[in-house]
Amino acid sequence: MAARGGIDLGGTKIQAVVVDGRDAVLGAARHPTPTHGGPPDVADAIAGALREAAAAAGVAPGQLVGVGVGSPGVVDAAGTTVAQARNLPGWDGAFPLADALRERLGAPVRIGNDVQVATDAEFHLGAARPFRSLLGIFWGTGVGGGLYLDGRPWLGRGAAGEIGHMVVTQGGARCPCGRRGCMEAYAGRAAMEARARRRHHDGEPTALFRLMRRHGRNRLTSGIWARALAHGDPLAHELVDEAVAAIGAAAASAVNLLDVEAVVVGGGLGLRLGAPYLERIAAAMEPHLFKDDAPPAVRLAQLGDLGGAIGAALLVRTPPGAAG
Amino acid sequence: MAARGGIDLGGTKIQAVVVDGRDAVLGAARHPTPTHGGPPDVADAIAGALREAAAAAGVAPGQLVGVGVGSPGVVDAAGTTVAQARNLPGWDGAFPLADALRERLGAPVRIGNDVQVATDAEFHLGAARPFRSLLGIFWGTGVGGGLYLDGRPWLGRGAAGEIGHMVVTQGGARCPCGRRGCMEAYAGRAAMEARARRRHHDGEPTALFRLMRRHGRNRLTSGIWARALAHGDPLAHELVDEAVAAIGAAAASAVNLLDVEAVVVGGGLGLRLGAPYLERIAAAMEPHLFKDDAPPAVRLAQLGDLGGAIGAALLVRTPPGAAG
Repeated sequence: MAARGGIDLGGTKIQAVVVDGRDAVLGAARHPTPTHGGPPDVADAIAGALREAAAAAGVAPGQLVGVGVGSPGVVDAAGTTVAQARNLPGWDGAFPLADALRERLGAPVRIGNDVQVATDAEFHLGAARPFRSLLGIFWGTGVGGGLYLDGRPWLGRGAAGEIGHMVVTQGGARCPCGRRGCMEAYAGRAAMEARARRRHHDGEPTALFRLMRRHGRNRLTSGIWARALAHGDPLAHELVDEAVAAIGAAAASAVNLLDVEAVVVGGGLGLRLGAPYLERIAAAMEPHLFKDDAPPAVRLAQLGDLGGAIGAALLVRTPPGAAG
Repeated sequence: MAARGGIDLGGTKIQAVVVDGRDAVLGAARHPTPTHGGPPDVADAIAGALREAAAAAGVAPGQLVGVGVGSPGVVDAAGTTVAQARNLPGWDGAFPLADALRERLGAPVRIGNDVQVATDAEFHLGAARPFRSLLGIFWGTGVGGGLYLDGRPWLGRGAAGEIGHMVVTQGGARCPCGRRGCMEAYAGRAAMEARARRRHHDGEPTALFRLMRRHGRNRLTSGIWARALAHGDPLAHELVDEAVAAIGAAAASAVNLLDVEAVVVGGGLGLRLGAPYLERIAAAMEPHLFKDDAPPAVRLAQLGDLGGAIGAALLVRTPPGAAG
């Protein structure tokens, strides 16, 4: 029946799906990412989530054509190992994740970059289906980007798509990456939280941290930001407005350089803030667009929270190892 | 003998070359661009320059396989008309330049975008020959850009490459295009001259305008900037340093997005300031490069002043109209 598995491996959660031959979701499960231990513990958690999704789909993991994994960190060209996944516990070196999962699940496994598989999903199955060229922007803890040009993914020498580290203000704010003036220094949720904490600590009133505690969180999740905006919290509005302006400037710069047909915005914060903020991003791009009579289509990621996992399942449309 | 003509049509000069079947220059001529009249006068001047280059090469214009023209403004997809060439006299509407030149020269003519043909020249014949992906930066009155990705030119929907209008400082300096914070607002020679005039008018001492008058110029040419730098003029150094920083930020942003193998810098100011300033541009990129352990090659355009015309001659490697 050609069912495939897909995993979106994030710093806080592991999203698993099982899809059929037409990419429809048959089963899904979400587990927390381990915060202690090391790569084998993460592999255990991934296998657990996939087993649950497979059970919901009514298939055994060993029956799957393959399992694709969208991973942070550096994935080798063969799609078998993951290195430098700093958001995952004890994951500084390279770990053979594909082998570890194949042993646990009995199915072939192929790994890809998390942002790229989310871009693949939107290009092939989501909001960018009508287009041949795409800039995907994934607005979450950081801001990742993915490109399709002339119907094919553009990876450069392997590191393309770092839209979060395009410079939007020379000599500007310090980015979590250590550089200055990157878009992510204004728009990444981690950078936004660091700013909010600093300003709150300096005595600025805000509902952000009260909402965080009330909802049992220890960081400012996308949901907390959305709630603070709904409460009319001035600091939340100011920081989100700055984020929108920075995303708009970087996206317009990318469009001026590449003249792509479409920009698709996803990611935890992008999806949570949704259509009204997508409109604001499009409006923030507009004054910077050189060819302002022909702006690109700007759309919200259509596959939502499952996009990363569905995109990961695209990695195994052809079974891993089938060609050699 | 398969000789071809190439024209680089600029706002101040018309550079013509005649090349052989291996792209070697057999003859060249440079004429001033008319400052009055309209498109037919410009066509006359182009024909005059081409005739002189052909005479130097020992061929009649009618014997040429074809003549390629690199033009400012908007060139139609067929390579026959030019519209909105605002640096050329009386050239707001669309003018059938290919037909006008064919009548005057008796050879088939194909027109392309000036920045793109200069990029083509560096990719196929110049500094980027060893590479499959390239960002070309042409630093002159404005700052143009051209892209090759995976061995092919990337034009987007027809307007790609506007690196001069990537945002380097949100809310920053006003660009000649009317927008704020574009790279060209700091690095375009027109914007640099406007700043220098303003600061000079406000009483700031500078040798720039004295050198300009002494050399019989009415604007700050690349040569005047180079001389002022050599004199140690503080204002010239400050403005060129700002230009270099802005080019570095935009180029690094483009590399973070595209991860190209090579960046080639040309253009009137880029070529005139040469290797020492190329090094400075590479150094200005470095702190912004996300993948800083693998910077792209950064090279000076190798074909120099003739690059645009040689690149234009590439437009007629296949005779215009040969395919239909």
